[in-house]
Amino acid sequence: MSGHATNLRLKLPAICFLLQLFTIILFAVFVRYDGETSARLWHQELSHHNKSNRDNDFYFRYPSFQDVHTMIFIGFGFLMTFLKRYGFGSVAFNFLIAAFAIQWSTLIQGFFHSFHDGKIHIGIESMINADFCSGAVLISFGAVLGKTSPVQLLLMALFEVTLFGINEFVLLSVIGAKDAGGSMTIHTFGAYFGLMVSRVLYRPQLDKSRQREGSVYHSDLFAMIGTIYLWLFWPSFNSAITAHGDDQQRTVMNTYFSLAASTLATFATSALVNGEGKLDMVHIQNAALAGGVVVGTSGEMMLTPFGAMIAGFLAGLVSTLGFKFLTPILDSRLKIQDTCGVHNLHGMPGVLGALLGALVAALATQDVYGDGMADVFPLIADGSRTATYQGTCQFFALLITLGFAVVGGSLVGATLKIRSLGSPPDTQCFEDQIYWEVPEDHQGGYLTAVNSEDPERSASV
Amino acid sequence: MSGHATNLRLKLPAICFLLQLFTIILFAVFVRYDGETSARLWHQELSHHNKSNRDNDFYFRYPSFQDVHTMIFIGFGFLMTFLKRYGFGSVAFNFLIAAFAIQWSTLIQGFFHSFHDGKIHIGIESMINADFCSGAVLISFGAVLGKTSPVQLLLMALFEVTLFGINEFVLLSVIGAKDAGGSMTIHTFGAYFGLMVSRVLYRPQLDKSRQREGSVYHSDLFAMIGTIYLWLFWPSFNSAITAHGDDQQRTVMNTYFSLAASTLATFATSALVNGEGKLDMVHIQNAALAGGVVVGTSGEMMLTPFGAMIAGFLAGLVSTLGFKFLTPILDSRLKIQDTCGVHNLHGMPGVLGALLGALVAALATQDVYGDGMADVFPLIADGSRTATYQGTCQFFALLITLGFAVVGGSLVGATLKIRSLGSPPDTQCFEDQIYWEVPEDHQGGYLTAVNSEDPERSASV
Amino acid sequence: MSGHATNLRLKLPAICFLLQLFTIILFAVFVRYDGETSARLWHQELSHHNKSNRDNDFYFRYPSFQDVHTMIFIGFGFLMTFLKRYGFGSVAFNFLIAAFAIQWSTLIQGFFHSFHDGKIHIGIESMINADFCSGAVLISFGAVLGKTSPVQLLLMALFEVTLFGINEFVLLSVIGAKDAGGSMTIHTFGAYFGLMVSRVLYRPQLDKSRQREGSVYHSDLFAMIGTIYLWLFWPSFNSAITAHGDDQQRTVMNTYFSLAASTLATFATSALVNGEGKLDMVHIQNAALAGGVVVGTSGEMMLTPFGAMIAGFLAGLVSTLGFKFLTPILDSRLKIQDTCGVHNLHGMPGVLGALLGALVAALATQDVYGDGMADVFPLIADGSRTATYQGTCQFFALLITLGFAVVGGSLVGATLKIRSLGSPPDTQCFEDQIYWEVPEDHQGGYLTAVNSEDPERSASV
Repeated sequence: MSGHATNLRLKLPAICFLLQLFTIILFAVFVRYDGETSARLWHQELSHHNKSNRDNDFYFRYPSFQDVHTMIFIGFGFLMTFLKRYGFGSVAFNFLIAAFAIQWSTLIQGFFHSFHDGKIHIGIESMINADFCSGAVLISFGAVLGKTSPVQLLLMALFEVTLFGINEFVLLSVIGAKDAGGSMTIHTFGAYFGLMVSRVLYRPQLDKSRQREGSVYHSDLFAMIGTIYLWLFWPSFNSAITAHGDDQQRTVMNTYFSLAASTLATFATSALVNGEGKLDMVHIQNAALAGGVVVGTSGEMMLTPFGAMIAGFLAGLVSTLGFKFLTPILDSRLKIQDTCGVHNLHGMPGVLGALLGALVAALATQDVYGDGMADVFPLIADGSRTATYQGTCQFFALLITLGFAVVGGSLVGATLKIRSLGSPPDTQCFEDQIYWEVPEDHQGGYLTAVNSEDPERSASV
Repeated sequence: MSGHATNLRLKLPAICFLLQLFTIILFAVFVRYDGETSARLWHQELSHHNKSNRDNDFYFRYPSFQDVHTMIFIGFGFLMTFLKRYGFGSVAFNFLIAAFAIQWSTLIQGFFHSFHDGKIHIGIESMINADFCSGAVLISFGAVLGKTSPVQLLLMALFEVTLFGINEFVLLSVIGAKDAGGSMTIHTFGAYFGLMVSRVLYRPQLDKSRQREGSVYHSDLFAMIGTIYLWLFWPSFNSAITAHGDDQQRTVMNTYFSLAASTLATFATSALVNGEGKLDMVHIQNAALAGGVVVGTSGEMMLTPFGAMIAGFLAGLVSTLGFKFLTPILDSRLKIQDTCGVHNLHGMPGVLGALLGALVAALATQDVYGDGMADVFPLIADGSRTATYQGTCQFFALLITLGFAVVGGSLVGATLKIRSLGSPPDTQCFEDQIYWEVPEDHQGGYLTAVNSEDPERSASV
Repeated sequence: MSGHATNLRLKLPAICFLLQLFTIILFAVFVRYDGETSARLWHQELSHHNKSNRDNDFYFRYPSFQDVHTMIFIGFGFLMTFLKRYGFGSVAFNFLIAAFAIQWSTLIQGFFHSFHDGKIHIGIESMINADFCSGAVLISFGAVLGKTSPVQLLLMALFEVTLFGINEFVLLSVIGAKDAGGSMTIHTFGAYFGLMVSRVLYRPQLDKSRQREGSVYHSDLFAMIGTIYLWLFWPSFNSAITAHGDDQQRTVMNTYFSLAASTLATFATSALVNGEGKLDMVHIQNAALAGGVVVGTSGEMMLTPFGAMIAGFLAGLVSTLGFKFLTPILDSRLKIQDTCGVHNLHGMPGVLGALLGALVAALATQDVYGDGMADVFPLIADGSRTATYQGTCQFFALLITLGFAVVGGSLVGATLKIRSLGSPPDTQCFEDQIYWEVPEDHQGGYLTAVNSEDPERSASV
């Protein structure tokens, strides 16, 4: 019976075909190459404005774009393969929903940010923003990993991308907040949205699948591929859409040092909170990355290298403590089952990063920024607001983001409860075999994991 | 007896040393730094032509080159590690033949494209082209994976690179066809060449090794590393040698959307054709990439984003159906044993991509391309041919490529049948142990796989 | 008792917190954004010197930086996961010590190279140099892999980074040697430093852990991820800090061909020295990379492509022979237990590379370099020394490096012998379980590996 309900033979093709067809039609009607991508327009630009190909934004941003792209598909995808029996679902559902989200967010973000003359005009920056948006969806995916069908995940992406676009528009265009690396728009939003979805989809009987919730030795190594790539390319993530020149370089540098400090804090704290002083791979895989999240807003500002280090250090500390002490409480008290601990990696460090951004913005002075003020805080530079007011706006941007995430996540979670979406039964969570043809060596473990009392067999991969 | 024949102790060193020595001599005689790589020449350029270091082509192409390089060595290499007992051979023979092919193709392509004053002049673009050519060889490798010795593979590379160079010269320089991402020169050529080699090397007794032709759980995850990297960096592949500016950016964008759409098509079709609605990793690992192949020719053209999506969607669909329905027929009827299904990933999508390129070329208008026409279709821009004629040339380029591939592959296949090249016996295909020192945990499975009737043991890794 | 000594609960947090705190304080006092990273300073530059954002060094170096970053954290990290039971320690201790080393070396190198007006000014080039320095530490780590605690490793990093900075200052600033890719400063220094540490920490009873010193099938594939990334991005490594323009392009090209040739030499030699003609993964994983090391000094020079190939070929040959014949002798005769064989990959090829650099420098002529001489050999270009003298300086730079490495490694090794640093007992080397919480599937093997006579169990992972 449950086997029938999780059969995706019609549901998954139907939703994939429909979403793709709908997207293609909307692209045909609305989406056009922008002035740097179109053969005709760019060559007009070249001849009329004395530009050279070097000035094409492509060359400023493509290396960063490819790093971000790697983070989305390799970084997030492999980070989640830590589960012993959910490697296929982790990396491949990540692949599927990101491949959809980048298309859908090109439309949504395009309507809000690059809609002129009835058309959306896209180029390298919209591709980066599309990848960013899919990052938020993948963060939410982490909270519900192993407990949702790909049909549910595609629906979640559809709604979340839309809400993401609205929230981002409010923050950046209405309030004039700065958030180049997305401490608020991506991390805080993605995390609390996902946590609310997970809350609504709470499974009281999840204990029936707990024996599959851990890792095996090699699945932890696969996860480290994801971790390290996220860590490596986070400087590109935070700097990908900042202004050219000093802004990109400074954002890279701040992120680089923040991450380094959060790594030391994570190792230190992981050993400290363990009874035998042993390190825990879950902490290393996740909390070491908190340094990237925490400077997502302030990375482009004059944070100073040592400021970045302090931020990263605190983020690594808080994140590791979260994994140790908070995750169990979220589960038992708040009924939030957070498979990947996104609250620790994206939630708390995202909120910290938003607060840090508000603080650093409020401290901005002409003396420190010089003529560079116009790139970082255009509204301060042109005299339309003070630094203090900018900081206040940053703070309210955080509150708005939390509001959108919590309300949106609750509503979307309720939608995903619809019975026919192929959700796995409580006994078959964190298990590839219900959605995948699996090799022989994976099959035995599944049956015994579900049916027998033998804990060793369930761990044999 | 068979053990003796596959002993590579003299054969492999002999061919490696000879090929490397011969290459070094030819490089010493013929190959020189080009005007942007030589200290003297570039500094002449700087002072005489008022250039800056920024104008060095290196900065336009190096990021793309590194992405292509990653695709060749990580992408192809790990994609093929899906086999449960051939991971070493997959990634390492891939490494070996690509390391040779990039050297050899620098010579062959150099003679055809950058031979002046008795010397070949090389720079960043020739490195990209050398990597491209090795890509074609690795596609062919996919068709014969697990059934050939490294000595055979090096010989195949030697001949295939040479034929590749001739075919490419005819297409690009004689006929004036466009094929920046290689739908024809790389994918169609590499696939049908490899399929013909596989046809000539047909093994009626391959059933004796079928128990090793599948995957294990973790080998499928290793393969996904290859898949995702190929997918991520395909935009760089297709754009790496297009003209600067809008051309590179547009090619990236078209490929990005084509791949996204082919991913959704692949997931949809994979579930649809499976009796229980389960997804098949073989499809995800391969068919999701067909979107990159199918815009290899047309990616630099004004394909439009939604055009790219339609192309990618169809490619993913056709490719998945190919894996499900065509591969078994190729094997049973046409006696083509295509280990990696390169016909589905590179063959059919390559042909589709060539046809699409012909169509889009035939539809080119001055109105759409403006002054950018000279970059994409120089022969249309200078009035020496019409768009329709360009399209016709593109179509004939496909036929010529198929001719070169089929005839060349047959002849090379026949050459590789020479007995003393260390080919594995039918009972030891898809098995690392005949060419590699393997760790203890790998050895047991090998013996039982060959000698016993127990299918479970053969799967134990 | 031994369990108590290796308990890191207080030691690791203490050293991490102390080092990080100390670093943050020094950064706060001394480290500032440089003129291209600071908002105020770069915008002054833009307006006063008629520059454009394009001229920011960031765009010349960031793609190379990210490749180097990948080599340090993915390349070195995964290369060392070949050990069957030390994958966590390999990739994660690599992560920890590199995260510390990049911070510490920013200070040390900053004091020597960019200290003005009482402040260290940092930008993209200092980030690359910091990564380079951590590369040297990771090479040393390879020599002591599995036999040291993370506390020891952090102390080693602290001292080694400091010595690295002094040696580099003497070579580059005092003697005027050239070493852009670090054949001397990174590879020779890192290798002989690590070998001396290993010598001082010699364990006569290491046989008690030998059963864990090998690989399993999948751990060899994880290691290949490291190998291929190191191989791919070595051209970026050697070119990352060379002069703009032809220099970066030429260094990339030389390294590319050197690596290709060393790969063929490695496969050839590996088969040749094996009794059954079988290839050895240890050789492929390591010796194929020697081509990158050997052109570390000469890569930016007018080495010619065929010169690079000859160098790479010899390096691959020597390195493979080293693994086969020299490593056992180092262990038995010289009491140097070199876990990863860094003497073969970094030591000998580094020395060869230094000698090659001296030779190519001595042969430099105005005729070949033209106005580019000023970029490669500024002291020859301005007439303050002859090419022969430059070559001589290069040679003495090698001797000085060996001196620093041997003396420094001995002293630091002696320091690391302090009892309370958590070093593993002889019976528990190459074993993750003493420092890590490990998954169930890893635990059984550990106990049996230590306690039983059954060799099969110890190999089961």
